[in-house]
Amino acid sequence: MAPLTDFYQLTMAYGHWRAGRHRLPAAAELFFRRAPFRGAFAVAAGLAEGLRCLRAFRFSAADVAYLRSVLPSTTEDAFFDYLATLDASEVTISAVPEGSVIFARVPFLQVKGPLLVVQLMETVLLCLVSYASLVATNAARFRLLAGPDMKLMEIGLRRAQGPDGALSASKYSYIGGFDCTSNVLAGKLYGIPVCGTIAHSFIMSFTSLEEVQPRELLPLAGGEPVDLPALAKSLLQRVCELLQTPPEKTNRGELAAFVSYAISFPHDFQGLLDTYCVRRSGLPNFCAVALALHQLGYRAVGVRLDSGDLARQSKEIRRVFRACGAHFQVPWFETIPIAVSNDISEQSLEEFSREGSEIDMIGVGMNLVTCPLQPSLGCVYKLVEVNGSPCMKLTEDEEKMTIPGIKTIYRLYDAAGHPFMDLMALEEEPLPSAGQELAIRVLGRLDETSKVVPTTVEPLHHTYFRDGQVCEPLPSLPEVRSHAQVSLSLLSPAHRRLHEPQPYPVAMTERLHNLLTKLQQATQ
Amino acid sequence: MAPLTDFYQLTMAYGHWRAGRHRLPAAAELFFRRAPFRGAFAVAAGLAEGLRCLRAFRFSAADVAYLRSVLPSTTEDAFFDYLATLDASEVTISAVPEGSVIFARVPFLQVKGPLLVVQLMETVLLCLVSYASLVATNAARFRLLAGPDMKLMEIGLRRAQGPDGALSASKYSYIGGFDCTSNVLAGKLYGIPVCGTIAHSFIMSFTSLEEVQPRELLPLAGGEPVDLPALAKSLLQRVCELLQTPPEKTNRGELAAFVSYAISFPHDFQGLLDTYCVRRSGLPNFCAVALALHQLGYRAVGVRLDSGDLARQSKEIRRVFRACGAHFQVPWFETIPIAVSNDISEQSLEEFSREGSEIDMIGVGMNLVTCPLQPSLGCVYKLVEVNGSPCMKLTEDEEKMTIPGIKTIYRLYDAAGHPFMDLMALEEEPLPSAGQELAIRVLGRLDETSKVVPTTVEPLHHTYFRDGQVCEPLPSLPEVRSHAQVSLSLLSPAHRRLHEPQPYPVAMTERLHNLLTKLQQATQ
Repeated sequence: MAPLTDFYQLTMAYGHWRAGRHRLPAAAELFFRRAPFRGAFAVAAGLAEGLRCLRAFRFSAADVAYLRSVLPSTTEDAFFDYLATLDASEVTISAVPEGSVIFARVPFLQVKGPLLVVQLMETVLLCLVSYASLVATNAARFRLLAGPDMKLMEIGLRRAQGPDGALSASKYSYIGGFDCTSNVLAGKLYGIPVCGTIAHSFIMSFTSLEEVQPRELLPLAGGEPVDLPALAKSLLQRVCELLQTPPEKTNRGELAAFVSYAISFPHDFQGLLDTYCVRRSGLPNFCAVALALHQLGYRAVGVRLDSGDLARQSKEIRRVFRACGAHFQVPWFETIPIAVSNDISEQSLEEFSREGSEIDMIGVGMNLVTCPLQPSLGCVYKLVEVNGSPCMKLTEDEEKMTIPGIKTIYRLYDAAGHPFMDLMALEEEPLPSAGQELAIRVLGRLDETSKVVPTTVEPLHHTYFRDGQVCEPLPSLPEVRSHAQVSLSLLSPAHRRLHEPQPYPVAMTERLHNLLTKLQQATQ
Repeated sequence: MAPLTDFYQLTMAYGHWRAGRHRLPAAAELFFRRAPFRGAFAVAAGLAEGLRCLRAFRFSAADVAYLRSVLPSTTEDAFFDYLATLDASEVTISAVPEGSVIFARVPFLQVKGPLLVVQLMETVLLCLVSYASLVATNAARFRLLAGPDMKLMEIGLRRAQGPDGALSASKYSYIGGFDCTSNVLAGKLYGIPVCGTIAHSFIMSFTSLEEVQPRELLPLAGGEPVDLPALAKSLLQRVCELLQTPPEKTNRGELAAFVSYAISFPHDFQGLLDTYCVRRSGLPNFCAVALALHQLGYRAVGVRLDSGDLARQSKEIRRVFRACGAHFQVPWFETIPIAVSNDISEQSLEEFSREGSEIDMIGVGMNLVTCPLQPSLGCVYKLVEVNGSPCMKLTEDEEKMTIPGIKTIYRLYDAAGHPFMDLMALEEEPLPSAGQELAIRVLGRLDETSKVVPTTVEPLHHTYFRDGQVCEPLPSLPEVRSHAQVSLSLLSPAHRRLHEPQPYPVAMTERLHNLLTKLQQATQ
């Protein structure tokens, strides 16, 4: 993975090497400048992948040969020999645990090591952490909107940036709070639960009941096999009477597809209702097959809608299920889960809950995996110290200014257990004491000192990588997922809300502020 | 790659297999419903990757074992045995050549084969083709806006959906008309030219001229080595006088970084101007070092700006380069290329040309690779025929209706050589004759017959895959890139323009329309 980097990292690497500066001790920080999606928070993700990549960091002979062909011809041979020896054995990484809630401008990953290697880590770490955190945050927002009981399925494989983008989307949506993915490879690789319904193409591939093969199904409790197409057909008459819809308007191919699927999966039958007309075809056909299954002792597991006004239709469908359940005396009919898909966004979820929908399960694809509200987290990776000297970038854009020095990050909690501020201190400063007043400077109003008294002080970073090895056990994916939900639940409602949240304050200690001021003066 | 699919494809596959329908001959089409970015066209891409994936299509023993663990326990063993034997040897793929301009609702890829395999191809083909075509289209739009002479660099690695998303972005941006990528791995894997400038971190890592090591540079024409820091320092005095800016406001670390980089890359020196203040530090420091290099016979290759008002600054910088060029009698100074980056979008490019900027080179990252104007092309893959019977989806959303039957697609050209219509015909219909009147139905107004007389008729699809093998030689990446530019250049300006283009008409033959009407009536 070492060549997964921007070309300028290598020209700069040569610059450092040629100047004999490549082994100067250096430190860099990774953070984002603004919380995504106009919220106040993000969910940190991508750490485990970043560490895996770091452990494997090496230029192969083929990599070096390629670099030789693209770097300026004046580049000295010895540099390429040096590249071939590089690895991450002198790098130390500290970071917030994966799944933690994080805030704008607070470093959530720190890298220390020889200048050249720290520099070469920039692009690959940004690449692995930015999208991961973005999509985990996006998923977390969907979960917050949907509430804890809604089943959320990630179905974005066909909308993602290729296979790997899709795998990342599946993994980090799960971390952010989704229940399952449609992506089989993600299930296989990461152990995420996989899920799926049925597609229009399956239904369209049938035209008549004659195509159903085999036609018989054994009752669950045993006994003679039953001709399911015939049973479903006769029940369809009765369903159409009940629903007052003409039987000739039901599509026979659709009925055949439902029956065939039910014979294949008698315990897992589900219907997609909108290949033709939901009310006049999909719904009566589904009810007929589900009732037929019921007579044999099986239960249908759900329906899906993929077009039209989903909230309104879900209510109609529930009414029909209730009517059928009462009429045919099948109590479980009332609670058949209704799943929806079709360009579901945060707005759709808000609409569903406003309209009191009867939806139980939501598939989100494009609006989850491509994060259209903000398709990049815009993380940056900035050098903060070289050879013992803190450094910073002072530029025309105030927002692009960086905060110098190697820092320790603390999260301050109030008496209710909510985090109320993240505090950056210089590494050498003592741990702030819980219950004691701290003098700090809040970003955005650095010219005045503020006082805070935290009830609890939590050092935010753990050291995860040292001497070329991962040095702290990494949690499993479900553990990271739980940590994310806990981390989100600790947030005060004002910081957690998705629209116009209260900005989360980030501060620095007086000593760090002094350093900042000193460096600003020195460079102006 | 076979498990790179949605779970429901496998439940449906079992459904087909159980019903003995898995080997029915079937055909599917891939298309998008609306042209992206509010334009009239897209650029087809991803074909070669799709074919590669198809050739390797197979479920490994581990894949099958995994599927056994997630499919319902009632799934018969023989199905898994069957899955283990599957490959794409009976699949035929026809498609438009990669890089072709394509339009909404016109199938640009067709798949024929046994129903089960055709169904299993859906997700992976959508995944490989959709993002590829989207980003190629996005890149093509940037190229159209920038004009043929602007150098366009793709720099999106850190903003993409992980490593593979980034590699796809690099490859398909190149196809769409970009000149190079910053992504070293993309350069190595695909042979795309790589490019890069220099980053703030390199500059921030220096604090004083004392750090510059080695200090000497040999003049190009030979002779005694020269102390470059000393020479640059003395020239800086003269530059500051000329520019009437106080020398003490120039940052010494920045000067050191520039000098050090120039010693490493005397033929390839470039400066990043905005780490501190462009006008008072970056620009004078760059000019001093470039003039020092000039005295030794070398030429600087460019500068980059990464913040602030890029168009305005580019004009100021050009003025300074002209002033320096005249004052120090260095004619090439006037034409030093100016590169810009920082959240460049289509809008930025429009602004640059409106303001008559002096920009020569543009780096585009986030707005290229994440396609924020429309982050998914929304391609769909629809069954159009099973077992010799055309099929279609008639649904509540009129737009989601599909057009039945296996089709041949023709592009009709006018006398000026512009394509003016794409025409769908049934496969068995004869080739429409050039120069003869055709009776057709245009999508959007199907109830009336229109007449057109094409000057040229081009069958749009080629057969690329047959009997498990790629059966037509695939063009190289530069060939695909050229084809895209030619294809775009043929478009009439009304269809090519990016804002409010004239919609491109898509039509069907009378015979196809008859089939559509017949099926519509049959299902209603």
